Order: sequence, then C-alpha cells, then structure tokens
Amino acid sequence: VAGVRAGQPRAVARLISLVEDGGALPQPVRAALSAHPPTAHVVGLTGPPGVGKSTSVAALVGEYRRRGLRVGVLAVDPSSPLSSGALLGDRVRMTEHETDPEVFIRSLAARGHLGGLARSVPHALRVLDLAGCAVVLIETVGVGQSETEVTGLADSTVVLIAPGAGDAIQAAKAGLAELGDVYVVNKADQDGAARAAAELRTVLAAAVGRPDGWRPPVLSTTAVRGEGLAEVVDALDAHHAWLREHGGLAGRRRRRIAVEIEALVLTALRERVGEAALDELAGAVLDGVLDPETAARRLLASPGRVASEH
Amino acid sequence: VAGVRAGQPRAVARLISLVEDGGALPQPVRAALSAHPPTAHVVGLTGPPGVGKSTSVAALVGEYRRRGLRVGVLAVDPSSPLSSGALLGDRVRMTEHETDPEVFIRSLAARGHLGGLARSVPHALRVLDLAGCAVVLIETVGVGQSETEVTGLADSTVVLIAPGAGDAIQAAKAGLAELGDVYVVNKADQDGAARAAAELRTVLAAAVGRPDGWRPPVLSTTAVRGEGLAEVVDALDAHHAWLREHGGLAGRRRRRIAVEIEALVLTALRERVGEAALDELAGAVLDGVLDPETAARRLLASPGRVASEH
Repeated sequence: VAGVRAGQPRAVARLISLVEDGGALPQPVRAALSAHPPTAHVVGLTGPPGVGKSTSVAALVGEYRRRGLRVGVLAVDPSSPLSSGALLGDRVRMTEHETDPEVFIRSLAARGHLGGLARSVPHALRVLDLAGCAVVLIETVGVGQSETEVTGLADSTVVLIAPGAGDAIQAAKAGLAELGDVYVVNKADQDGAARAAAELRTVLAAAVGRPDGWRPPVLSTTAVRGEGLAEVVDALDAHHAWLREHGGLAGRRRRRIAVEIEALVLTALRERVGEAALDELAGAVLDGVLDPETAARRLLASPGRVASEH
Repeated sequence: VAGVRAGQPRAVARLISLVEDGGALPQPVRAALSAHPPTAHVVGLTGPPGVGKSTSVAALVGEYRRRGLRVGVLAVDPSSPLSSGALLGDRVRMTEHETDPEVFIRSLAARGHLGGLARSVPHALRVLDLAGCAVVLIETVGVGQSETEVTGLADSTVVLIAPGAGDAIQAAKAGLAELGDVYVVNKADQDGAARAAAELRTVLAAAVGRPDGWRPPVLSTTAVRGEGLAEVVDALDAHHAWLREHGGLAGRRRRRIAVEIEALVLTALRERVGEAALDELAGAVLDGVLDPETAARRLLASPGRVASEH
C-alpha cells in the first residue's frame, strides 16, 4: 500500500493482481483502499470494432500527459482468458506510454462469472486512485461484450463512431445514442466523416432528452495523428465539472458501488457454498427436480444459517 | 400454462411478461415450467452493427419454417428501456413472420440490474419450450452490450461477419474467434466477401484449438435475398447433434442454470433487503465508512438471519 501511494508501478501491478484474484483482501489493504476518497475522473470508451478504439485511448493518454496528469488505463476483457491476441494488439499501440512512469496500464479479465467485472474493476479503480491517477481510462476489448456493465462503471463515457455512410444511424439503432456523454467521430480525415457527425447531431437532437439534462457534444478526431484530442479532453473536463455541480457524480458512483456489492455477495456465496454445490443445484434444476427460484433460496439460506451459528 | 402448452400466442406473451416482471411466480407455474424437459435448440446470434443481424434472424426463421418447425425469437435489449427505436427497426423486418402462428417473437430488456438477462432469458426460454418451439433464436439488440452474457445462454452461437476488408481480422481481435460455433459472412454478394471468409478461416485455423474439439464452419449468406440459409441451418443442426453426442449440451445448460440461480439470488436479496438498504450501504462505502466486502457480508447476513428466524 505504501508503494502504491508512492506511485511505484510494481506495487500498483501487484495490488491490482491481488484484488483481481477475488480472494479476501487483508484487512489493512481493505481499509486503505476504502478510506481513500475517490478523486480520479473515470472515463469509459466504447464503439464498434475497427473504429480505432485503442489508438484513441493511446492518443487520449498522450493529451492528458501533455497536461501533466498521471493516467491509469484499464483494458477490460469480458471474454475468456483466450483472447490474449486482442490484448497484444492493444499493447503494441500503447508502446509509447509503456515506459512512462506516470502511466499505469493494466488489463482485467471477467473470468466468466456473473459480475466478474463489476467486482474487479471498482477495486482496480481504487488502487489507481490511491496511486495518484487523476484520470483512469477504461477501454473494453472486444465487440458487444458487457459494454453496458463496463460503461456503467465510468463517470463519463466516450462513444466512438466510424465515418462510414450510415454508421451514425447504425450506432443510434444499436442504443449508443443513450450511452455517450461525449461523441467522437474518429478518422475525421476519411470521406463521410463530416456527414457522419452531422447525422449523429440530428439523431441526438431527435432523441428524447436525457433525464440528467446533459447535452453530449459531437467532436471529430484523427487519433492516429493525434488531432482533435485536446477538444475531447476539454469536453470530458466539462462533463466532469457538470457532474460535480449537478450532483450526478455521487449518484453514478453509488450505483457503481451498489452493483459491486451485489457482485461481492455472489463471490462470498460461491466461496462459502462451493462451486460444486452450485453445479449440483443447477443439475437438479436441469433434471426438473427443483425450480430455479427454490434453488436460489436454498443457496441463499445455506450460508445464512452458517453465519448465524457463528 | 394450458394456453401456452396449446401454443396460443397470447398465453405465451402473457406468461413471458409474468416471468420478465421478476416477481415471485405462482407455484403451479413454477412447477409446470421446471418440470418440462428442455428440448428446444437455443441459437444465439451476434456480430458488429451493420452486419445484417435482424435480416439474418428473419431469414433464419424463414428457413426453419420451411422445414416445418415452430420457432421462437427473443430480441434481447441489454440497454435501458429507452432504446425502443432499435426494437422498432427489428420489428419492421420481422413483419413477414408476425402473422405466422408458428412464430413467437418477443423482446426482453435487462432493466439495468446485474444479472437481469441471466434471470429473465432462461425463464422465457422455458415458456417458449413449453409452447412447443423446436428452435429459439436469441438476437442481441445493440452493439457491445452484454453479448457474452447472452451468448452464454445459447446452445449454439452464430457469429456474423461483414464482408469489408479486414473485418474478419477486426472480429478476431475483438474476441469473436472464440465465441462462434458457426461463422457466417453475410452480404456475400458484396466485394471482399470471399476474401473475408478466407481470412476468417485462416484466423480460426491459427487459433488455439477449442477445448471442446468442435471445428466451427465458415459459411456465406446474402440474408436479404434469403441465400445460403439452408447451409446455416444444416450447420446448426450438426452442431446440436454434436453437442448431444459429446455431452456438451447438458454442460452448457448447467452453466446457464448456475448463472440463472445466481441472478435469482440477487433478485431475492433485493426483495428482502430493499433497494433503499442497498443504496445506503453503497453510500457508506462511497463515504469510506465501510469497505465493499463488509457491505456485501452485511447484505448477505441480513436475509439469512430473517430466514433462520422463520
């Protein structure tokens, strides 16, 4: 914990590994992590494959570094441990930042459990916060995988859109019109980028007003050449300030923690009852011997009884 | 339940609404649903936006109908209730099947809870099974949203790939190379489709062998003209038979039920403790008064105590 506070990369890496493992954390570690007030701005990035997500993350890191800020990057992989290929691709593009002691890059896997990311990401965020990161970028590796779960963890969400014809419409149809706090048409040097931005503005204007009242801006970047990133960071800063002013920041964080607590309940249950007992219950439901609600009640009751006997 | 058994569309719709609501089901309903052995082949479809997912689902339904099978379709929307626009788009394309009494189409929303879909989808599958559907297609509406969660619910997963240059590589990088049981390059009439299929075969051949030994085929369709769908259905039938022979079917279903039971545990906890209590615990964690593990233990202990007092 002292090493993390001092911003030592190895200590940060070790502590994140510890929290990712999912086992019970030593009490002093838990206390240090939870006593530290969260200050880092948590920014999620999402968008269809091929839009230049990894390049955009690297370019954003560059812009935050130019402003002198310490940055954390969580590359979240909701699929199996098999997709190391995808992560490798990201790592190559992050090379320029890998030797920067003010940038902490880390990948996290979901490990196939319900709530796996909801449990591991908040703790990793606490570690990066403790390490003095002013901003943490969360990038989801992979298409269509638990992005709602992940973007739900961020204070601000950047939605990246490709410049192709109809891409903005596709994105809107795919539900991205409600997800973003800042929209970015990347590859602004390609044909159709201006039109995609215009389409997107039309779609967003036509959408039902957001309940929180924030009006998401539509920006353009050419991330591979580092163009337009200053405007994106300015917009993110504006959204962060807006959340603080309107009290939305605490609300988003409470929701994030509520989901984390639920995920931790499942972890605790799995540990107490054991995977085998859960598999046995599932088998009984599959055989039609038990209905799933009764199975859930039994699962819930068994550790409760153990707890009250203590 | 009798109406569902008789395949009455209204009864099916009402029972799915009942299970989606998440409240406690009447005991006779629970018993009828869980006593019915699952027989329907559950097929998930996934792929990047713009690949023609909805059109492919409609074309697949057509092919299954030509074979005389009763078909269920679950359009799963993991985002908020706001994305009715996307659902409307799908509905338009499903029009040709909407008046067919042998096709049951239903959309489900995640409602923002951890495990929301893991809870509602399996029950909806049981209802469609009870209604005599031989096949149920699960389509995810939206990009990058809980697709892993959803594909984890299927017996067989179809991954759709666009024919553009590099699309297969992008898809592989995005982790789709491990997700699919059957790969389909849609829009096979467009330039680059043959090359995308060849690229995809190379990527799949280079990938580490799947632990279950199945070798996913790569097929081509032009869904908008109904071309190539017979081959897709044949491949899905082959995968289904293969799962049965190699015992993989029961394994996949047990895992699906295990996740469902965990989701039901959270539903039960939320009902017993109340959303307000969870929000209060989250607030205490945010304020640094409580660490999240302790909050989870308190949440878990409180209904346990209530249960043991009964």
